[in-house]
Amino acid sequence: MEKSIEAKLNALALLIGQSYEKHKHTSHLDCENLDCENLPEHEEIIDIVLHLRELLFPGYFDRKKNCVKTIDLMISEHIAYIYERLYKQIYKSFMLQDNISQKEKIIQRAQEKSCIFLERIPNLRDMLSMDVQAAYDGDPAASSIDEVILSYPGVFAITVHRIAHELYMLDIPLIPRIMSEYAHTLTGIDIHPGAKIGKYFFIDHGTGIVIGETTVIGDFVKIYQGVTLGALSLKAGQRLRGTKRHPTLEDNVIVYAGASILGGETVIGEGVVIGSNVFITRSVTGRTNISLKKQDLIYTDKASKRSKKSDDDSMMIDWVI
Amino acid sequence: MEKSIEAKLNALALLIGQSYEKHKHTSHLDCENLDCENLPEHEEIIDIVLHLRELLFPGYFDRKKNCVKTIDLMISEHIAYIYERLYKQIYKSFMLQDNISQKEKIIQRAQEKSCIFLERIPNLRDMLSMDVQAAYDGDPAASSIDEVILSYPGVFAITVHRIAHELYMLDIPLIPRIMSEYAHTLTGIDIHPGAKIGKYFFIDHGTGIVIGETTVIGDFVKIYQGVTLGALSLKAGQRLRGTKRHPTLEDNVIVYAGASILGGETVIGEGVVIGSNVFITRSVTGRTNISLKKQDLIYTDKASKRSKKSDDDSMMIDWVI
Amino acid sequence: MEKSIEAKLNALALLIGQSYEKHKHTSHLDCENLDCENLPEHEEIIDIVLHLRELLFPGYFDRKKNCVKTIDLMISEHIAYIYERLYKQIYKSFMLQDNISQKEKIIQRAQEKSCIFLERIPNLRDMLSMDVQAAYDGDPAASSIDEVILSYPGVFAITVHRIAHELYMLDIPLIPRIMSEYAHTLTGIDIHPGAKIGKYFFIDHGTGIVIGETTVIGDFVKIYQGVTLGALSLKAGQRLRGTKRHPTLEDNVIVYAGASILGGETVIGEGVVIGSNVFITRSVTGRTNISLKKQDLIYTDKASKRSKKSDDDSMMIDWVI
Repeated sequence: MEKSIEAKLNALALLIGQSYEKHKHTSHLDCENLDCENLPEHEEIIDIVLHLRELLFPGYFDRKKNCVKTIDLMISEHIAYIYERLYKQIYKSFMLQDNISQKEKIIQRAQEKSCIFLERIPNLRDMLSMDVQAAYDGDPAASSIDEVILSYPGVFAITVHRIAHELYMLDIPLIPRIMSEYAHTLTGIDIHPGAKIGKYFFIDHGTGIVIGETTVIGDFVKIYQGVTLGALSLKAGQRLRGTKRHPTLEDNVIVYAGASILGGETVIGEGVVIGSNVFITRSVTGRTNISLKKQDLIYTDKASKRSKKSDDDSMMIDWVI
Repeated sequence: MEKSIEAKLNALALLIGQSYEKHKHTSHLDCENLDCENLPEHEEIIDIVLHLRELLFPGYFDRKKNCVKTIDLMISEHIAYIYERLYKQIYKSFMLQDNISQKEKIIQRAQEKSCIFLERIPNLRDMLSMDVQAAYDGDPAASSIDEVILSYPGVFAITVHRIAHELYMLDIPLIPRIMSEYAHTLTGIDIHPGAKIGKYFFIDHGTGIVIGETTVIGDFVKIYQGVTLGALSLKAGQRLRGTKRHPTLEDNVIVYAGASILGGETVIGEGVVIGSNVFITRSVTGRTNISLKKQDLIYTDKASKRSKKSDDDSMMIDWVI
Repeated sequence: MEKSIEAKLNALALLIGQSYEKHKHTSHLDCENLDCENLPEHEEIIDIVLHLRELLFPGYFDRKKNCVKTIDLMISEHIAYIYERLYKQIYKSFMLQDNISQKEKIIQRAQEKSCIFLERIPNLRDMLSMDVQAAYDGDPAASSIDEVILSYPGVFAITVHRIAHELYMLDIPLIPRIMSEYAHTLTGIDIHPGAKIGKYFFIDHGTGIVIGETTVIGDFVKIYQGVTLGALSLKAGQRLRGTKRHPTLEDNVIVYAGASILGGETVIGEGVVIGSNVFITRSVTGRTNISLKKQDLIYTDKASKRSKKSDDDSMMIDWVI
């Protein structure tokens, strides 16, 4: 390295060190020595999610080949693997909040939580088996259940959500959100781990979907790409923490692409169908279809440059067929 | 591990095994021994896509350094590599559907399909070279062809689509969809492998685009982020399989951001321009521009709280310049 | 391999070689020997981004464990690592444009640029510490600063953007765009490296956001998912290069989900709030809220099939709370 550049980079190192002191909230190097624990690790958490997926959908994502004879071994190996890694990450996330002198107690609590979470796996499989069925039934482009499990982003997103939601319900900080953002990254579907979602949930395509923290969704609900289940206004920021800010969708609701449903007091009743691009901020009682009346379109002939308004493009088409 | 936790996890292992029996459709461990084949492997399929990209755009994504002198070697190595891996995955996907006693015949058919697919590569390069040119020509932010090939998500999406579509046309199950969902994951662009797409196709930005299975697109078409080429209603689910559910776009059509074109009988004629956020469910004859007439906007002064309606915001602007 | 297939694949290899000759613009194998340099490498550029993130947010993404005692070593190791790799990639990107006989001079220029870029890191930390604070303050679902840094896609997108923008300002080709497309892939947020973005910038959710090359954004701006800051028309393609095609947002502007603001002469004044789904192509003076007046919705009772129009769904709700 050239002398002048070397000198500059040495000077820079000092400035960066000072910057760590200056902005404490974006520096996390406060461990006294290399033995003390720091933040939960992103890579480890993703690894846990992927092992859970192998256990939840056996045979589909196996890194090690399995067959009828090896099932029992596969199950116990996965349980042991996930248990060990998960409690360590939970321990790290607890240590961020708690008194370091209680280390032993926190380890024990983390182990208990890891075990309680794992005991939810049969229930998670009940739920996910219904979600997979809903995806197959709901999409004429689905050619098999295998295709749905192997390739549907909505199935991956709800798998990760149901995992993350269990951890969220166990009051584990940070880890659920890291998991849900991992699914967001891969699918474009952004479901906060706090959202409560019923049985037979189907997301098609999914890119651009946002489902907020305090959303409540019933059974047999379908949601398409670009749908927001959001808050009315976020200008109050942190003062809104803990309030119900996101809507409730009752059973059998369908929300077509690009629609927005906003507000913590907004309840979309049983069986309501919300059409594409509808923007709604108040409750709707059951058994109603809601659509945009029409768009005023202008048709301009390129040659003559003459325009006319359209007069017939009702958008009440989502339930025609 | 603590005794009480160990006991719980052992009990859990049994319950998970029972859950595999209970939900057969989300468990794929029916192989009798480790020699028999299971599902196509996601990792292998991605690896095939990435090697195909190296072969289709030589010099851009090479993992091994190449130069003029090594081209021939590089080509034959890639062909052999892809041929071997692809036919094995095709074989696995066929075995899911066919009689296991015909194993030899199925291997032979898989090898033939792998070879037929590979023979399409010069044609794929013809098509992709036109797509790359269309992306460069269509985007004033593009500073070079190299930039387009190396970094444009639309180019990656159409590359994977053209590969997946060839395999779809060869009636290979599962693999095309796994490939297209891989591109969806990386780009937010969701093109079903069944869609037929003409020459000089350009997608800009791309996040949120959905192009359905039975869509037909002509030459020189441009599509922007958030566009849906979709079905009118999916409530009938699996009963709609095989019908034409998605629109046809003729040559030289432009579809601006956020527009939705729905329905299997909807034909957008030659040279039509569809403006941003237009929602259209019926055919449009050629040489017409369609736009939203205007939005009724309300302007509210923050200090006085007085509002007025806007009166001039025609949205007929997409072809002004 | 069967004889007939082997013959076919050998014939194919020749055709692929010819295709490389035929489409020169999608083949980059013009190096005479293995010593000469080719394009910048995608993998290396991603690696640089990830090491920069470790240096910018110490303790959060460390691949090697660190503590108070190892900070200085960590900083100098990272600086040396990034400096070496970055100047080599810059050198490669310069070599694409410049005279190969000036090799020594170009290496020297690349080293200088790599050093100048690194010297911006303390400033980048100043900016990013404000962005992190803005994300925490603006989102009631954020439970800690750590959560924001570890998992918010908007924070990742602005981190990569601020890095890429520095390199863009240093007139380095290709590398900034490869970086920004990497962030686009992971977050669905597409910010061109040319965009100028002020302090305390907050993106929530983010999927589907597009921010064009010549956009200018002031301080304390918030943007939600699906927002486009774009050009009015791109039909002129490459002829528009270098012109200001994208809007200007002054300080304290909020743009809610799905809104589009288009055009190089469009200025959104200080403190303006743009409501969801608003589509605007002309300037707005300060301290105004703009929203869609209402949507004409149709409510259809499923049993009686009777419809009625809605009469009260003003969309002026974004700043009610």
